Amino acid sequence: MLLTLPGLIDPHVHMREPGQTHKEDWRSGTAAALAGGFTCVLAMPNTRPPLVDIPSLEAAEDCARKKALCDYGLFIGAGADNLETAAPLAPKTAGLKMYLDRTFGPLQLKNKAAITAHMANWPAAKPIVVHAEGRKIAMAIQIAARLKRSLHIAHVSRKEEILLIKAAKEKGLAVTCEVTPHHLFLTKEDIPRIGPGRSEVRPRLAEKSDQAALWENLAVIDCFATDHAPHTKAEKDGEDPPPGFPGLETALPLLLGAVHEGRLTMEDLLQRMHDNPKRIFSLPEQLVTMIQVDVDARWTVRGEYLKTQCAWTPFEGMSLRGRVIQVDLRGTTVYEAPDVIVEPGFGRNISTGSLAPDPVKPIPM
Amino acid sequence: MLLTLPGLIDPHVHMREPGQTHKEDWRSGTAAALAGGFTCVLAMPNTRPPLVDIPSLEAAEDCARKKALCDYGLFIGAGADNLETAAPLAPKTAGLKMYLDRTFGPLQLKNKAAITAHMANWPAAKPIVVHAEGRKIAMAIQIAARLKRSLHIAHVSRKEEILLIKAAKEKGLAVTCEVTPHHLFLTKEDIPRIGPGRSEVRPRLAEKSDQAALWENLAVIDCFATDHAPHTKAEKDGEDPPPGFPGLETALPLLLGAVHEGRLTMEDLLQRMHDNPKRIFSLPEQLVTMIQVDVDARWTVRGEYLKTQCAWTPFEGMSLRGRVIQVDLRGTTVYEAPDVIVEPGFGRNISTGSLAPDPVKPIPM
Repeated sequence: MLLTLPGLIDPHVHMREPGQTHKEDWRSGTAAALAGGFTCVLAMPNTRPPLVDIPSLEAAEDCARKKALCDYGLFIGAGADNLETAAPLAPKTAGLKMYLDRTFGPLQLKNKAAITAHMANWPAAKPIVVHAEGRKIAMAIQIAARLKRSLHIAHVSRKEEILLIKAAKEKGLAVTCEVTPHHLFLTKEDIPRIGPGRSEVRPRLAEKSDQAALWENLAVIDCFATDHAPHTKAEKDGEDPPPGFPGLETALPLLLGAVHEGRLTMEDLLQRMHDNPKRIFSLPEQLVTMIQVDVDARWTVRGEYLKTQCAWTPFEGMSLRGRVIQVDLRGTTVYEAPDVIVEPGFGRNISTGSLAPDPVKPIPM
Repeated sequence: MLLTLPGLIDPHVHMREPGQTHKEDWRSGTAAALAGGFTCVLAMPNTRPPLVDIPSLEAAEDCARKKALCDYGLFIGAGADNLETAAPLAPKTAGLKMYLDRTFGPLQLKNKAAITAHMANWPAAKPIVVHAEGRKIAMAIQIAARLKRSLHIAHVSRKEEILLIKAAKEKGLAVTCEVTPHHLFLTKEDIPRIGPGRSEVRPRLAEKSDQAALWENLAVIDCFATDHAPHTKAEKDGEDPPPGFPGLETALPLLLGAVHEGRLTMEDLLQRMHDNPKRIFSLPEQLVTMIQVDVDARWTVRGEYLKTQCAWTPFEGMSLRGRVIQVDLRGTTVYEAPDVIVEPGFGRNISTGSLAPDPVKPIPM
């Protein structure tokens, strides 16, 4: 059955450009987004150089403007060196990203005073997303609560974390969170199948009990976010494999599978892949934007056929249900499976561009 | 896969009460509606007595108010005797029904002057529905056009008719129309299977070419309407079988089957079973109203298991896809397959009642 759904929003992707276009670039990454049904992606700032100031924001925006196939936003990273200078850039960004734990790239805030300063300076109306694990989530929530500001917790993966966020929500704190499809559908038990290097990801794949806790606390999960984080096969299979999975092209089929199984309703899915990210990140309406999905189509995931440049997936060989057939973005058909049919540069920055459909050009008489 | 859809609206049903409760009554008819996913039905006036004046309107409203399980509206019939007296009753009705062709019951307007008088007197803001076949459609459209008023053509069944309506729409006339599932899914060729008496229906089952023309002109069809018109098996199998099919419980599965086959999109379906009837008949929003449908469920139609009192169907033995699992009406769960779980009288008249959810009663301390 074909269903028309709103364009999906992924609030957490890594486009790798500028600086690491051997892994992904704005064209290949947003092609993967369209193939996965996403018409808007919010990109993380751990590029090379990291997006932390005006020159690096302009460099990233320059790449995105020229190559993006879908709409996008850019997070600015919270560093020790931009405590005062990040906030004035807020209007041009999708939000502030704070890394309290170590992951791929050099951005990490270790200092509680720096975390507090960033949260205090950043405008209340713009989101702050935090990569924090375990007890550091509690610390981040505590600081945000003291400053009476909202906070979005990225890629929650463990039982203690989701329960902590549940408790914070029950207290009435303005905390939201996202969970990745890979933490919903994979656990440590999948590591032998995926391979030791390829299964490196932050937060790490967790226990069955963690996975179960995420499903049991679905009501606490505001968004599904892929944390699409491509690295090459050579990097993943080499020494010191970098953490990260590609995820844009498998997210919707994985979650539609759960809808087929009755573990999720279509409304649960659309709330977390459209409504809530749109609200939490104050995204403008993408007018005349929709995706057509064959919700029944069965297909086997093969990394080599994916649009992400990294051409591998932790879900290799899995049989999934649901394929995106067509994507219309702002009145233009931009994807007809399996082809992107729009030129790089069609995507617009949600912070600075208009998302109205292109005006129909008058026919010259 | 379970989908949550808006409550469906059927703008054309026959509840048979008052007067012919051996065929159907407001309880059994609206139970069939809920089982079919309809939360609002508009009932035709060819009851016994026909609904044509204040006493007959009050008698019908009395039955509906006591027994209806879903929301409803009542059409008033246009007769030769209520040219002046029908219009003042408009606010209490769903619209005016004009029979220009003979069908079940005594209501029929043969006189062009009477048709014109009814159309001229009836308020512009309230719909007029006409049962007209063939060239009588052209006449009705012509009169309405001259009076610059809107007109809704009931159960269009033939190629010449749909093309005529298409032409009227292309001229910019305020004409809308409905088609029944039985004319979309059955033709004369099905008569031997259904049986001669049981296949009696007005308009009659048509040729394959008529059926094809309806599908080819889907864009011209504003609504799918069941024309649910139950008669007992004994009546249908006896001498002089009355025309009419029950249809409330098979409409959605038949049309979902077409969605599965790709002949229809889900949007096509929802436009014609919710959006357009709501707009054309100016129906108020049924707040917190939705149906849950297992769009994949396969089942075989058996008249004896239907909720319509007549307990037969022209689709007997057909394998259909799609079952209504739950219906929520104005904040209350009223149907959990296969049971209606609300008391008769829950339904409200869309012309006179409030369709807001019932206020939550405070818990006594």
